[in-house]
Amino acid sequence: MFKISDNFSNMKPSATREILKVTSQPGMIAFAGGSPDTSAFPCEEVKKISAEIFEENPVSALVYGVSEGYEPLRNTLKKWLEKNDNISFDNSEIIITSGGTQVMDLATRVLTSKGDAVICEEPSFIGSLNCFRSHGCRLVGVEIDDDGMNITKLEKAIEENPDARFIYTIPNFQNPGGTTLSLEKRKAMYELAKKRGLIILEDDPYGKLRTAGENLPSIKSMDSEGIVIYAGSFSKILAPGIRVAYAVVPKNIVPAFTIAKQVSDVHTGVLNQMIVSRWFDEYDVDKHIFDIQKIYRRKLNLMCDCLDKYCADFIKYVRPEGGLFIWARLDDGIDMMQYVKKLLEYKVAVVPGTAFMIDEGAPCQYIRLNFSTPSDENIVKGVRLMAKALK
Amino acid sequence: MFKISDNFSNMKPSATREILKVTSQPGMIAFAGGSPDTSAFPCEEVKKISAEIFEENPVSALVYGVSEGYEPLRNTLKKWLEKNDNISFDNSEIIITSGGTQVMDLATRVLTSKGDAVICEEPSFIGSLNCFRSHGCRLVGVEIDDDGMNITKLEKAIEENPDARFIYTIPNFQNPGGTTLSLEKRKAMYELAKKRGLIILEDDPYGKLRTAGENLPSIKSMDSEGIVIYAGSFSKILAPGIRVAYAVVPKNIVPAFTIAKQVSDVHTGVLNQMIVSRWFDEYDVDKHIFDIQKIYRRKLNLMCDCLDKYCADFIKYVRPEGGLFIWARLDDGIDMMQYVKKLLEYKVAVVPGTAFMIDEGAPCQYIRLNFSTPSDENIVKGVRLMAKALK
Repeated sequence: MFKISDNFSNMKPSATREILKVTSQPGMIAFAGGSPDTSAFPCEEVKKISAEIFEENPVSALVYGVSEGYEPLRNTLKKWLEKNDNISFDNSEIIITSGGTQVMDLATRVLTSKGDAVICEEPSFIGSLNCFRSHGCRLVGVEIDDDGMNITKLEKAIEENPDARFIYTIPNFQNPGGTTLSLEKRKAMYELAKKRGLIILEDDPYGKLRTAGENLPSIKSMDSEGIVIYAGSFSKILAPGIRVAYAVVPKNIVPAFTIAKQVSDVHTGVLNQMIVSRWFDEYDVDKHIFDIQKIYRRKLNLMCDCLDKYCADFIKYVRPEGGLFIWARLDDGIDMMQYVKKLLEYKVAVVPGTAFMIDEGAPCQYIRLNFSTPSDENIVKGVRLMAKALK
Repeated sequence: MFKISDNFSNMKPSATREILKVTSQPGMIAFAGGSPDTSAFPCEEVKKISAEIFEENPVSALVYGVSEGYEPLRNTLKKWLEKNDNISFDNSEIIITSGGTQVMDLATRVLTSKGDAVICEEPSFIGSLNCFRSHGCRLVGVEIDDDGMNITKLEKAIEENPDARFIYTIPNFQNPGGTTLSLEKRKAMYELAKKRGLIILEDDPYGKLRTAGENLPSIKSMDSEGIVIYAGSFSKILAPGIRVAYAVVPKNIVPAFTIAKQVSDVHTGVLNQMIVSRWFDEYDVDKHIFDIQKIYRRKLNLMCDCLDKYCADFIKYVRPEGGLFIWARLDDGIDMMQYVKKLLEYKVAVVPGTAFMIDEGAPCQYIRLNFSTPSDENIVKGVRLMAKALK
């Protein structure tokens, strides 16, 4: 009889995505998701753009594209990243992907062999952790402080794991931690990677969703050696359903990365790429980002204010400077998993913190709260219920 | 210093896709591609449908979807496959993918571990072969006869390779061979797989492009045991740039397959799936298929007639009953690779047959000719030049 491969026989579906199924039940207050606020989608623009594409040259949106991505979009992104993020690179170094997760998948395929270690923040985004796991990688978690990955512990992890192939980091408004890697730590991480011959996989889906504080330079912008793969995405600033993201890849990794893309899904949908490309051509994307930051700022602050007001006696958290998530610690003595189940009875869905840990069975006092999916009204209502559910 | 993974360090980009770059040069007659005829795209329909989607409910096309795929499309496909292809299955067994190649990728991830064997037709589609290679699989090629894979040799290959995990077959109008697996051979292959505990990966992107003869039942339609993964695609009957395909997967493989999809690209673009779904709702897809078969029939016959007229003295081939390709054998004594290069001088691009072989270095007298991409005029002109180039 056939059997499932070793890599997959122990895999479980992402708890977040499984919980998304529960949260779509009517009447559920969705603090468990990770979706952007739908009112932030530029619906009218996308509608107009897609009509233009099909009016002007429908065939161009329907034919096969090249694996590297739609050339005009790649060129536009190069200029945009150079101007806004001080990331310079050669034209050939940008590859369009089908969503951000695909960057992690392609990087893992290209850089690791079964059993190799991947160093990551702990907690970290379950989608990426599962991706690494699915390739047979061994996860080595490094604790996060309020200003991102603990560098002393990172150094120790690198020393203890000579088979580590790359460091995975979400530098801005980490998922789920909400923390932002400080400038000093970015520099320190880069120097460590350089010294130890490691790649940094810099996953930055939330970077543009800053609601307070100052932008920090990406690690990629410091990459004089060509050791950083930078992943950017349109899921949070345009819309996730369109599945367009990109990777800036060091030149000597580009050929393998392109083949990995080719054998994965040949290329990302051309219509999808053309929509994003024309969005840049015809609209002010930076203005749009500025506008949607207001939405996220309002909701982030609303949820934090509610937590402070209703839950301060049993929940601690560090107020993030952006992103989509609050990483909330329940006081010792509260059984986290029981509390999460209790919340479901109150029709409030949150993600148990264990989902983001390398060992999902280890004790964990955290829950992840998302403030972008629920309405303002439901944020207030849900946090109140969080307090009520504890009694 | 970091290094590229073992699986990828020996990989080369697909010759076909590399050649596509050359064929896009102005003035080149493109017998090398694999694109459907652009006049077969239902442009007006897609234009109208996407306008409706953005008119009626733009948010639904832009939010995150589930990994299994857009529910209305899955339901529609289930009914369509049951009615037209006699493939019955449970609702949960159909998963929407980002193009057909992704089915091969997910299946390989889920079914094989590094070093396992995959049994395939030789020659076979280079995109799939490279996909299997990229996962560290060892390819075991089985010769094809005029009516598909040689079953005696298949049995021998299975015996000699107890680590084989699945049989990969393109039963209809094989790429590049043009052959169709006979009904007897379909049954024999299924019985062999059943007896030996193997999965059959049935890749059927061309099945609807039949231009002569009678439809044959898919191997999946015989699958009483749940050992066949069936891959269907909209790349050839709607348009390839939209990247929507599907897999019908045995129930006990579904959970792993879904996780593989999740960690690969989360889900296929929602807009893309909605376009296909509404195409079924609002138009007569079977009528469309009937109509585009006329285009392919005309072009296939035109190219064959030209080959018979101008190249009969040095080229032999079996006239396919559909699909996109003619697998043409050059007479012994002709240096295939030199001939292909000579053709490029005459501005005719074809794919050297070696690209489709497991050992690309082995001698091969074949070239693959595509008749769907070039215009009728260029088919005639190109085949004439093929004769001229030999002199």
